[in-house]
Amino acid sequence: MTPSPATAAAAGEAAPGNEPRVVCPRFHAAIELIGKRWSGAIVWSLSEGPLRYGELKRAVPGLSDRLLSQRLRELESAGLVDREVQDDLPVRVIYRLTDKGDGLRPAITSLGQWAERWGE
Amino acid sequence: MTPSPATAAAAGEAAPGNEPRVVCPRFHAAIELIGKRWSGAIVWSLSEGPLRYGELKRAVPGLSDRLLSQRLRELESAGLVDREVQDDLPVRVIYRLTDKGDGLRPAITSLGQWAERWGE
Repeated sequence: MTPSPATAAAAGEAAPGNEPRVVCPRFHAAIELIGKRWSGAIVWSLSEGPLRYGELKRAVPGLSDRLLSQRLRELESAGLVDREVQDDLPVRVIYRLTDKGDGLRPAITSLGQWAERWGE
Repeated sequence: MTPSPATAAAAGEAAPGNEPRVVCPRFHAAIELIGKRWSGAIVWSLSEGPLRYGELKRAVPGLSDRLLSQRLRELESAGLVDREVQDDLPVRVIYRLTDKGDGLRPAITSLGQWAERWGE
């Protein structure tokens, strides 16, 4: 049978003019940025405080040098991470969150709480 | 010069025994799950209410049928999304968040607020 408008409504069919909202493009860009493989883990680690490259590498086990460097460049370019080269011998390179990166803290905490509650 | 311990501390060098915490594996799994390309946008759309397949497709522009189906299967298998087949003609398939999926709402809201504040 062809569903009547009433049947369609009961079955969850959107009424005319009741189309779902298109996903917010800013939210979409944000989740794709920090959801990119390893990026979330790097931001999580830096949310605990500034880290040297080697410390960051140990904080995210399994991440290769190549990918760590690439992700750090992407996060710098997105304005989430600052890279500071200290003029010591040996040269020290410190990574820290910018204000924009630090602004992710509530979202990270909230996702961490969800993971504690539901993670396996 | 070789930095003294005091210089090293000022430069952000971790003191012995002060190694950074390894990233929480549950957090890491969670961000990799909902950060996977398109998954965050799908969860965002379903967080507004249950949707039929076609509605979901229109809510996430640019997402192909193949990838939408694949992501929905992944989200079902992770326990975030329920798929309900309604015995109508034509058959209706409704997707909705499970309790576990709905539990992501605070993290999604928080990331959405960050995106509003910092997004371009």
